[in-house]
Amino acid sequence: MLNVDGLKNGIVIDHIQAGMGIKIFNYLELDKVNGSVALIMKVSSKKMEKKDIIKIENVVDINFDMLGLMDPNITVNIIEDDKIKEKIKLSLPKKVENLIKCKNPRCITSIEKYIPHKFYLVDEEKSEYRCEYCDEAYKLEF
Amino acid sequence: MLNVDGLKNGIVIDHIQAGMGIKIFNYLELDKVNGSVALIMKVSSKKMEKKDIIKIENVVDINFDMLGLMDPNITVNIIEDDKIKEKIKLSLPKKVENLIKCKNPRCITSIEKYIPHKFYLVDEEKSEYRCEYCDEAYKLEF
Repeated sequence: MLNVDGLKNGIVIDHIQAGMGIKIFNYLELDKVNGSVALIMKVSSKKMEKKDIIKIENVVDINFDMLGLMDPNITVNIIEDDKIKEKIKLSLPKKVENLIKCKNPRCITSIEKYIPHKFYLVDEEKSEYRCEYCDEAYKLEF
Repeated sequence: MLNVDGLKNGIVIDHIQAGMGIKIFNYLELDKVNGSVALIMKVSSKKMEKKDIIKIENVVDINFDMLGLMDPNITVNIIEDDKIKEKIKLSLPKKVENLIKCKNPRCITSIEKYIPHKFYLVDEEKSEYRCEYCDEAYKLEF
């Protein structure tokens, strides 16, 4: 099994659903950060059959709403001086703005480009959101 | 510094120019392989200031021509039973077929879509190739 260690300061995004790691890597634009980054895909896990892990050196400033939206089962560890300073358990955000887009062609957000796309969570189990303007359903699928 | 170890069988793509790792990852479609994969970006190196490394479990079948084209300074280690079985030093391939495309709009390959794009290496130092049909120069830039 592949192991990555040696992160003194930074962030560990753990328990990512196997295969989702590269999507999170791309969304967070981790190819552009200055420090070291490790993306480890499809390793064995106690909790899950297989999982992905991302380790980022020196960076902590991340949009957790989007991360929760992409995969609410993720856990995030903030590392300082080789120790876990904080553990963050993600979840689906109740409201999201400009992270997903309404696909209803008759929705005001499809017609007027300057209007922000706002959604609210209606069903946590089904990861279902609805548009604040037209009530169109949106099922999360990444 | 981030370290990755624990690869029993597979391939290590080392000394990748910092920042190129994700392009190689995407080109090789490593998100689709079955085994574990690690992409480690911008780690310190003795040879280079910073480098990227890719480790792939159980997979050895890779197009080395394309890899050499993307970054001829890469070294590849084939790992078997925790030991380096083979070290491969890449270089720019002398000829390439269907890996880069001729951009000359008057070239036969731009007009007739079924014709393979063939290039030959004219200047190794400048990474310059020329189209076999119209002699249009192509400078590698990934």
